[in-house]
Amino acid sequence: MTYSHTLPSSGPLRLAAVDLGSNSFHLLIVDVDNGHFTELEKCSRKVQLAAGLDDQGRLDEDVMARALKCLEEFGTIIDEHRVNRLRVVGTNALRSAANSIDFVIRAEQCLGQRIETISGREEARLIYQGASTAWQEETANCLVADIGGGSTELIVGAGTRPLALESLEMGCVAYTRHFFASGEITEATMQATEQAALLELANITTNYRRLGWEQAIGTSGTIKAAASTLRALHPHLKKGEITRDGLVALRRKLIDLGHLDHVSLPGLKSNRARVFPAGIAILNAIFQALGLERMQHTSGALRDGVLLDLLSRDTGADVRHTTLAGMQRQYQVDEPHAGYVAATALTLFDQVADTWALGDEARQLLEQAAMVHEIGLGVAHNRYHQHGSYLLANSDMPGFSLPDQLALAWLVQAHRRQFPEPPPERRTALPANDLIQLARLLRLAVVLCRARDGSSDWQPELHADDQRLTLIFPHAVPELLHQDLVLEHQWQEQAALSLAINTP
Amino acid sequence: MTYSHTLPSSGPLRLAAVDLGSNSFHLLIVDVDNGHFTELEKCSRKVQLAAGLDDQGRLDEDVMARALKCLEEFGTIIDEHRVNRLRVVGTNALRSAANSIDFVIRAEQCLGQRIETISGREEARLIYQGASTAWQEETANCLVADIGGGSTELIVGAGTRPLALESLEMGCVAYTRHFFASGEITEATMQATEQAALLELANITTNYRRLGWEQAIGTSGTIKAAASTLRALHPHLKKGEITRDGLVALRRKLIDLGHLDHVSLPGLKSNRARVFPAGIAILNAIFQALGLERMQHTSGALRDGVLLDLLSRDTGADVRHTTLAGMQRQYQVDEPHAGYVAATALTLFDQVADTWALGDEARQLLEQAAMVHEIGLGVAHNRYHQHGSYLLANSDMPGFSLPDQLALAWLVQAHRRQFPEPPPERRTALPANDLIQLARLLRLAVVLCRARDGSSDWQPELHADDQRLTLIFPHAVPELLHQDLVLEHQWQEQAALSLAINTP
Repeated sequence: MTYSHTLPSSGPLRLAAVDLGSNSFHLLIVDVDNGHFTELEKCSRKVQLAAGLDDQGRLDEDVMARALKCLEEFGTIIDEHRVNRLRVVGTNALRSAANSIDFVIRAEQCLGQRIETISGREEARLIYQGASTAWQEETANCLVADIGGGSTELIVGAGTRPLALESLEMGCVAYTRHFFASGEITEATMQATEQAALLELANITTNYRRLGWEQAIGTSGTIKAAASTLRALHPHLKKGEITRDGLVALRRKLIDLGHLDHVSLPGLKSNRARVFPAGIAILNAIFQALGLERMQHTSGALRDGVLLDLLSRDTGADVRHTTLAGMQRQYQVDEPHAGYVAATALTLFDQVADTWALGDEARQLLEQAAMVHEIGLGVAHNRYHQHGSYLLANSDMPGFSLPDQLALAWLVQAHRRQFPEPPPERRTALPANDLIQLARLLRLAVVLCRARDGSSDWQPELHADDQRLTLIFPHAVPELLHQDLVLEHQWQEQAALSLAINTP
Repeated sequence: MTYSHTLPSSGPLRLAAVDLGSNSFHLLIVDVDNGHFTELEKCSRKVQLAAGLDDQGRLDEDVMARALKCLEEFGTIIDEHRVNRLRVVGTNALRSAANSIDFVIRAEQCLGQRIETISGREEARLIYQGASTAWQEETANCLVADIGGGSTELIVGAGTRPLALESLEMGCVAYTRHFFASGEITEATMQATEQAALLELANITTNYRRLGWEQAIGTSGTIKAAASTLRALHPHLKKGEITRDGLVALRRKLIDLGHLDHVSLPGLKSNRARVFPAGIAILNAIFQALGLERMQHTSGALRDGVLLDLLSRDTGADVRHTTLAGMQRQYQVDEPHAGYVAATALTLFDQVADTWALGDEARQLLEQAAMVHEIGLGVAHNRYHQHGSYLLANSDMPGFSLPDQLALAWLVQAHRRQFPEPPPERRTALPANDLIQLARLLRLAVVLCRARDGSSDWQPELHADDQRLTLIFPHAVPELLHQDLVLEHQWQEQAALSLAINTP
């Protein structure tokens, strides 16, 4: 794999990405050296998580077993390659399954690695990043479509920059369950499927057409299969090309075949056959709604985007920083003050990190929380920590997984007044106890910066002795700061956290 | 009463405002003609709602009886004057009492008028509006302070325009309960009260000082009493003037008196005496935190602001419109589309308003909801109606009362997908059934505008027959719109609401 546009340079690294898709699981391992990628391993397994959702929206035991078996296999491969960094993301099926947390816990044990469910729009962003590796930065607007098992992502972008990102609740596995339960493929079932897809598309069509594009690109399974089947049927087509006429003919052919059990076409893998008609109906609806004449399949996909994102975090191009800065602007945060709280929090962190065994990820999270701890003020002053927490838990935040967002949301909720209930185990990016320690540091930083004037004369030392914190001031502090620290001592004691304040 | 700066002109009107304050209830009735106000009636009753809060934060029966008796008296006066428009607002005690809804229901029956609890910052905005009647538009920055029974409002503004609005959780009644429970007035109790106030003030001091002001103004009871007591003690002072030295002397005098039972001073009404020391402590803290040398009392207050606001709604200067437009900008709403949905919703409304007995207020609310129904998209696309609803229920929204906000929040929550539970009775600006009808109209407007291209070719007629709605299209509609209407029919039927769609 070679990425045609410039990547940030870095030392040699071996990176791996696992995409727990609703239809297939994918593994990609690459060596990256100074911006150049060498693919070492790339494999996919048709786990069909979304097909294993029962009527209550729960993943059944069979599909969980199938998924864990696949992850064991992936785990062995990853171990053999001794990768430096690994990221595992889950998409629609894990977003929507009622018991996804049960699966995530077992899967994390199996892989020995955190699994991060990402939002639909984050999935769209990463897909675009993966797909855009195929073209030059200066390329004119592109449309990228990715029909997955549970959701479909549609992106318009310019070069490497997405302009519109959407994740729609329609996918080939979910629609097969819903519209093809009897197995029959008729004009009526195809139309019903297409109408449902058109209704989903109706909300975005006008905006997307307004942005416009010169080229339509498709990624991953359904679109890849459509292209290879069309080429087998019409050898005059370019490799990877899907035309409107070809699509209509393919749709006709599927109706002629009449039943999911009879779907067998040249170029179509047999394990794709049963979800292919629903996928083609969705693709046809996309062609109709967006007025497409042709689409080109490209191999870059979600897993490539995940790898690129992982790499950019090391090289100063961390999209998460851009996201938080954007939120600061939207909610009119006092940015210098936020920066001052962050610096103070990190100074405290560095004094206790060893004792509390907190690593880089915790340090980053603390800094991020400090950047946005006051965004709720952009909603209302009253209970602003709760508004900030709501926004962080619910916003589209490029670069952040859902567990990241829930960790930030909890820290911001906890940054003043009463300590909230501990965060739910396994749903946040860090364990509950680590988050509680970070909240204590953030709170102290907020108190130390209360005057909001950037003064930093106190320079207290912070000692941690197991859970007990002692804040030692070398000089006398103003009465008001002292009162404030006494209050904070009381809040922490109420939460059974010991905090001693030593002033001369 | 004469307002020195220009007011919007209007025909002769008789307006009344009632302020259900935490310490006193106030009534103001004026005639307004072409921008000139003539005061007809102005009275206050020391009800001390905040003093009637028990340990569970509930208003006790005694205080409720006292309050209702006062409202009966006010009601008689209002009836005698045959006012055209009346607005009744509740402040901190009603915001915070656990059982305020019980009181509101009884008070509304007693007055025959809706009671609107307003947020702290809305209170601050209206106080500033009331106080700023005392100066010319071109006045340089002013600080306005209002120490109430339950909260204290601090505003910096330029002319009639507020630049910073805050409502702090400290008031003379609440602080008397908390710090003067024993009745003793000592240096220690005064200091403890002042320290608590200084901590509340610490969050805003730097920003306020950065804005700066040329004059400090004080309004309402505590500050009025401080000024009149000081003048009785020091006849050289200007009328209404409070100096730092005078305040220090007054504080000293209160400590010398030693007990709340012994507070008796020239110029101080006896029913103010017991809450006066706490009020002076808060005022002293304000002088200290903001570095004030003097403050001038002015008579304009919350009730004046309420009247001005009521008047401006009729004269095209409705601050609520500005608020919603600001929210559209903050959350990057597609404004033309929102306008188109609003116009469509109002066209539908006008066809059924008589049958459903919906008035002007309902029509306004529908239009407002349409303006902001998509603000949640500025947070995230997924469940955006819920995010919009959260923002409307929780934001600082100048011009809106809390029941207004809850009504808007419910409508936006209800504008797509499943119908939510009906809104809680008596907490929203309109009855639950009216809101449900408005939601049905808003939903139809959203469906009719789904293409987002401003097309308006359908022009359906809408008929209401009791709860049953029939939408009749003169011409055939596109298949996609038809599908969308069938879906909407299903959503409404699920909520036991009958909707028939007639297409040729």
